[in-house]
Amino acid sequence: MITLKDVQIAKERIAPYILHTPLIRVPALDSIAGCQVYLKLDCTQITGSFKLRGALNCMLALSDEERAKGVTAPSSGNHAQALAYAAKMLGCSAKIVMPDNCNPVKLERTRSYGAEVVLVPVKERENETKRIVETEGRTLVHAFADPRVKAGQGTIGLEILEDEPDIDVVIAPLGGGGLISGIAAAVKGIKPEARVYAVENEASARWTNIRRAGKVVVLEKLGNTIADGTRGNHGCEESWEMIQALVDDVLVTNDDWLIKALNAQATYGHVLAEPSSCMPFATAMQGILPVKPEDKVAFVLSGGNYDMSLISKLLHEQNA
Amino acid sequence: MITLKDVQIAKERIAPYILHTPLIRVPALDSIAGCQVYLKLDCTQITGSFKLRGALNCMLALSDEERAKGVTAPSSGNHAQALAYAAKMLGCSAKIVMPDNCNPVKLERTRSYGAEVVLVPVKERENETKRIVETEGRTLVHAFADPRVKAGQGTIGLEILEDEPDIDVVIAPLGGGGLISGIAAAVKGIKPEARVYAVENEASARWTNIRRAGKVVVLEKLGNTIADGTRGNHGCEESWEMIQALVDDVLVTNDDWLIKALNAQATYGHVLAEPSSCMPFATAMQGILPVKPEDKVAFVLSGGNYDMSLISKLLHEQNA
Repeated sequence: MITLKDVQIAKERIAPYILHTPLIRVPALDSIAGCQVYLKLDCTQITGSFKLRGALNCMLALSDEERAKGVTAPSSGNHAQALAYAAKMLGCSAKIVMPDNCNPVKLERTRSYGAEVVLVPVKERENETKRIVETEGRTLVHAFADPRVKAGQGTIGLEILEDEPDIDVVIAPLGGGGLISGIAAAVKGIKPEARVYAVENEASARWTNIRRAGKVVVLEKLGNTIADGTRGNHGCEESWEMIQALVDDVLVTNDDWLIKALNAQATYGHVLAEPSSCMPFATAMQGILPVKPEDKVAFVLSGGNYDMSLISKLLHEQNA
Repeated sequence: MITLKDVQIAKERIAPYILHTPLIRVPALDSIAGCQVYLKLDCTQITGSFKLRGALNCMLALSDEERAKGVTAPSSGNHAQALAYAAKMLGCSAKIVMPDNCNPVKLERTRSYGAEVVLVPVKERENETKRIVETEGRTLVHAFADPRVKAGQGTIGLEILEDEPDIDVVIAPLGGGGLISGIAAAVKGIKPEARVYAVENEASARWTNIRRAGKVVVLEKLGNTIADGTRGNHGCEESWEMIQALVDDVLVTNDDWLIKALNAQATYGHVLAEPSSCMPFATAMQGILPVKPEDKVAFVLSGGNYDMSLISKLLHEQNA
């Protein structure tokens, strides 16, 4: 399990290269959410998501020799862009394995940072990555299983408490568990009485499945959802340990609610985030986030790499 | 003319009641704008616009006796909401004169703060307000002609330089001149070498008209524009003096460009602002803002009281 200390070291390492993103207070959303709303805009992070934090923390920790051989990872998008950007910045080569049905915006931006992309059917991602590691000697920078990646993502938690020490609750989207592990280590380490929640999509509820099984199992049926940022069928042992130890609850939302949250955030909060990043606010609108009106709640908007044609269509339908 | 000192006093007076809004750095917009982009999100200010700053500064300066008699003003919307909110906060009565063709979102929100709204044809606004002042003894809190209002709006300039002292350029939307007068007093007072630009809409180019005439004249033909926040046909002497003395240039954009700016800000900056607040970024996209790639430029997004059905329709059309 990673600790507060790991996250603090990560912050020192990556701070010169990333943005300390804004935590904005949005009173206009309070009555809809039933609490005092703060939005953490990591959608404005370089590369458009929090993933740069973890990718950079890991890559800055590599030896010169490791960096010279390059890096690789399977990713459906935001980690891919972060890794590509970090590799370019550090002058090393990145070969990234993306599913052939990935978000085209994320694919194009990954390539724009100069990374080589290998497109494979989604089921072959892990095998293809393994093959690249073995034959090319590249270092695997796993999107969530690597503890250095988790520690980097946790710097979001440090920034939130630095900007607003009175925060009572932090809620973030849950995919493989890298983000929530890092945030929980940071927030609970500094302020044990604060609550940390994670939210997943019912179409891709891998952790609800793991909690039911009581161990790390692969989700057999992966449904469709527009929340591509958190879609996936597996977790890792360390994320599972950290969720059990430090996360107060894993909530489950769905596309209908996240679209309502997207619209509320856009209308009253003046911000746009990618679908998976609308899931935290969706839980508040849905009434499943256990908060009181006086609670100061930080909703982590972790990514902004959306397809604008989809987002504008969804908003238009909500307001027609 | 108001001075830096006036703005500093205003800041001290209103700071406990307003939000110090975020200035966010958005590298993803740099190549489109041709400079280093910072967005000042006063669209997230309480009541959804910068107008609360000026209204509060003026109302806090009134005597108890004046406050007891209540306030009034003509306003097409954002000042109306600010005045209504400030009056409610200070326990006094507000009667606001709005044009009968005003933005329905702004009308509804003004009423929601408890103000009495008088709807009149747009040409009768000033006369009706005068009548209310004379018959009811209310204090006129003018949206831009009052120096206390100008000083309050200028606190945006102080916040920008506090958050990023290296800012080279500030550009803000121009209506009656209250906002730009305050910002210019603050920015030029602290940093004379910084440049300050104002932008108006070609459908409502009252200051271009005044500059051509060399004196304060009323714009005879007021065209249609979706930038309702800056639409109007007149200025005031003090705004004119301040623009001549402290504003580097008044630029002119149009609805086509501001819609492109709206879309770029939404797609890459993850923020939504009302149409008039997209005009500063429009000038950069249009190539009429004199900046270099290394310039740090603060674009003031002064309001967020948009009709979401219009905004989402515009975005959908841009991305269909």
